Amino acid sequence: MRIALDAMGGDHAPAAAVEGGLLFARAHPTHAVVFVGDERRLHALFPQGRLPPNASVRQASEVVGMDEHPGQAIRRKKDSSLRVCFDLMEAGAADGMVSAGNSGAVMTGALLVLGRLAAVERPAIATLFPALSSSHAGGGRCLLLDAGANVICRPSHLAQFAVMGDAYVRGVMRLARPRVALLSNGEEDSKGTELTREALALLRTSDLNFVGYCEGKDIFSGDVDVVVTDGFTGNVVLKTSEGVAKGVTALLRDAIEKSPLPAKLGALLLKPVFAGLKKAVDYAEYGGAPLLGVNGTGIVAHGRSNPKAVANALRAALEASQAGLHKEIQASLVRAGSWLPGKTLRSRKGATEEPVSS
Amino acid sequence: MRIALDAMGGDHAPAAAVEGGLLFARAHPTHAVVFVGDERRLHALFPQGRLPPNASVRQASEVVGMDEHPGQAIRRKKDSSLRVCFDLMEAGAADGMVSAGNSGAVMTGALLVLGRLAAVERPAIATLFPALSSSHAGGGRCLLLDAGANVICRPSHLAQFAVMGDAYVRGVMRLARPRVALLSNGEEDSKGTELTREALALLRTSDLNFVGYCEGKDIFSGDVDVVVTDGFTGNVVLKTSEGVAKGVTALLRDAIEKSPLPAKLGALLLKPVFAGLKKAVDYAEYGGAPLLGVNGTGIVAHGRSNPKAVANALRAALEASQAGLHKEIQASLVRAGSWLPGKTLRSRKGATEEPVSS
Repeated sequence: MRIALDAMGGDHAPAAAVEGGLLFARAHPTHAVVFVGDERRLHALFPQGRLPPNASVRQASEVVGMDEHPGQAIRRKKDSSLRVCFDLMEAGAADGMVSAGNSGAVMTGALLVLGRLAAVERPAIATLFPALSSSHAGGGRCLLLDAGANVICRPSHLAQFAVMGDAYVRGVMRLARPRVALLSNGEEDSKGTELTREALALLRTSDLNFVGYCEGKDIFSGDVDVVVTDGFTGNVVLKTSEGVAKGVTALLRDAIEKSPLPAKLGALLLKPVFAGLKKAVDYAEYGGAPLLGVNGTGIVAHGRSNPKAVANALRAALEASQAGLHKEIQASLVRAGSWLPGKTLRSRKGATEEPVSS
Repeated sequence: MRIALDAMGGDHAPAAAVEGGLLFARAHPTHAVVFVGDERRLHALFPQGRLPPNASVRQASEVVGMDEHPGQAIRRKKDSSLRVCFDLMEAGAADGMVSAGNSGAVMTGALLVLGRLAAVERPAIATLFPALSSSHAGGGRCLLLDAGANVICRPSHLAQFAVMGDAYVRGVMRLARPRVALLSNGEEDSKGTELTREALALLRTSDLNFVGYCEGKDIFSGDVDVVVTDGFTGNVVLKTSEGVAKGVTALLRDAIEKSPLPAKLGALLLKPVFAGLKKAVDYAEYGGAPLLGVNGTGIVAHGRSNPKAVANALRAALEASQAGLHKEIQASLVRAGSWLPGKTLRSRKGATEEPVSS
């Protein structure tokens, strides 16, 4: 497999991209990475200006900014590192792509160049959360979607998200029967909005391992594998959990710094424990956010991605490509036609509709 | 002031209620607490069966269950501890009330017995979150509303929540110009749903210290004092943050237990630091969730309230009563008529509409 890496996207690009790409290349000698970006700047970052045999550079002269309008940027900047990643995939020169840049532009680029899968109403961005219960510590994962691509959703969109999330967890995380839940403000069927209640009724007729409504806390309990919600709520969950995890860690660090010597010594002795905790809640461990529903593998890495996060996102792109994820999603949605009223199966390639980005 | 305490509500009632009520009574000798519930069971719990001079018991033979239908329970169980609390307020025998019981029933009881303030479209439940940034550690607070009473909202409802939250933070938390924000999936004005964008436009015309959209992480940053959202999203924020905080703490405890002796010793030395952290994220410190928009002071304490949480909720009820909070909310909403199209000012006492509980 050959994965294209937008080497100019992200807060720490291109340095973090280069270092992360090299980590990946060394760890996966039978696969390849293509660094896409300003050739001169990239070569200056390679150790002794040399690349491993399974890495290459593809020149791209432009960069899509974090605050640019996704549609305009992808259409106008035809030689941007982001756009070129998708063009490589379209030309068969790459099997998947990773970018830590403008997430709206990644989704728009995927839609414009690769196209949407024929059976998909709305592609989505998914995010992996760690299960924080002790029995799953560092092990369990929960996939939440949509994490921000579709602010306004219909019940059938949520039902499709459930099918796509199920396909991801089966194909990439190798779980046979993922437990799928619908996010609501309580577990009883009477809770929720019109949107969630209609989606609940629809999903109860599905052949998924659907467990009904779940609450925000269940995302971290290890009791569910896929949580489905609209992109507005998904973004709020993402940012809220980021805020709490970051805040608790900062409070702890701060308290240790201000405390007397014995506590400081205690912190020193506890270092391995803190490192384990950091690993469990660290976004860098989680391989970025996959785009689901487009005709190929695209991974949005966190904007603040460090080299490890980039390498993990590349590995996630490799695994999704190896699993043939987008074909499995298409097949799953076609199968779901028995309970989920399908959309017209026309090609969506080059469609001009754009998702609202997160 | 005299605060009525539903001594039979909550997972640890009546023991936690009795102990918490006595803590409050001892700390506030010039005010009074009225324990409402099964007289015999309560008396058995008082040390030597005796009460301090500023505490008393009011017999109530029934209890509203956690899973009961709020409207039916409040209407049918006229001698329930919860209902009697409101009846005492209505009769002028109490200035405020606290319950750790069925939160939907608390809101319904407040609406049926006390009534809704004339200027209020929809009463709300508010929740206090700790600011977790180091500069505000253990200090700053953020009030989020609605935390679950109103799943479906109109823009004017959100605008009223903003006014009510502002009044609470001014009156009870003594902040002169609270920074008020609207929760969305991004900070730019183009983000959000139709609901949030209309509310944003409305709030921009307000005389509040309105700072625009905020994201989920800002609730914990110390940068905003009041965050406004619909009750569906508010509940998701509440449960998500609970899940993360609980999960991180559990992971840490678990890792320490499984670690070798030096790390265990480290944990021992760090004990005061952990205690400080626990205090910063502990719901018990935060005095429960005030009902805003009803004609009197009502506080919903956490279902799992321990004695300290009950005592803090009683103190919150005392402070809200002393501040004349409900009168301030009514006055603020009338003043807001200059930018917020008012509702018809008719009394809502005994109105049969019921909120969807959280």
